[in-house]
Amino acid sequence: MDFFEVLTTRRSIRSFLRDPVTQEERDILIKAGTLAPSAMNRQPWSFILVDQRDLLQAIAERHPHAQFAARAPLAIVVCATPAEAAGGFWPQDCAAATQNILLAARALSLGSVWCGLYPAEDRVQLMRDVLHIPEEHVPFSLIVLGRTEARFVEAHRHNPQKIHHNIW
Amino acid sequence: MDFFEVLTTRRSIRSFLRDPVTQEERDILIKAGTLAPSAMNRQPWSFILVDQRDLLQAIAERHPHAQFAARAPLAIVVCATPAEAAGGFWPQDCAAATQNILLAARALSLGSVWCGLYPAEDRVQLMRDVLHIPEEHVPFSLIVLGRTEARFVEAHRHNPQKIHHNIW
Repeated sequence: MDFFEVLTTRRSIRSFLRDPVTQEERDILIKAGTLAPSAMNRQPWSFILVDQRDLLQAIAERHPHAQFAARAPLAIVVCATPAEAAGGFWPQDCAAATQNILLAARALSLGSVWCGLYPAEDRVQLMRDVLHIPEEHVPFSLIVLGRTEARFVEAHRHNPQKIHHNIW
Repeated sequence: MDFFEVLTTRRSIRSFLRDPVTQEERDILIKAGTLAPSAMNRQPWSFILVDQRDLLQAIAERHPHAQFAARAPLAIVVCATPAEAAGGFWPQDCAAATQNILLAARALSLGSVWCGLYPAEDRVQLMRDVLHIPEEHVPFSLIVLGRTEARFVEAHRHNPQKIHHNIW
């Protein structure tokens, strides 16, 4: 699929079919995450693929905005490892990895949505509890995804007030 | 260009030709930024296009890792507006916008590199000083870009130790 078609038609999709996400698709999604840039190329991230129904349900029950995870075929949790990062830039690194995964999902015609975790302490703790994530790693973002009947339509957000030239 | 070619061959490029980045290309880059997801769709970002030589030189002199900006035709500074953001997620929102711009640059065959600003206080202050950015906005990332003779080669970062299935 053309890059600009992917870019312009990616949007948050929260309704999914039950069809599984294939192993080949999973590999592509994780590879997309690892292709993000990171400060000093430290790649301070890990990925948890969650497809076990009871775990998805536990996440859906405790995250305030991820009820649909209970019926989704897959979630990917991007985790940060601050001790491996450079200069405190791990939120940037892990956000870039998350965005790469969302775009790759669109290119695979999978619906996806980014549910925030860090810095919301209750959500970080819920993910630690459910997925047994060790203290030295920080659950950073939750991506819920799957095949969908929703349409990929283009967003229009042009706002010239947000663009400056040279001096602010 | 195919999405996965863009994704796999984007890399940090720090040497640029003097050729200007056209207005059409600038519009595409900024549009790419605005197409990023943001928490509750708040879009808490602004963009400063910097092509004035003395400003690029001032940035290059004071940022510890952006000397090449002095010879680049363009920089884009992504700024955050925390008061407009939801739940403290503005670093995520602005990082996703930054990553979209880097990918769009690759699709336009422009070299680009992400230079970190926030949370490094000295870099945030330098950008405030040079570009007169008001206190309520936070200089978040500096993207330096331009046409290049460098090659877009694929990165290989597969690391199975960073992938977990269900429980960590």
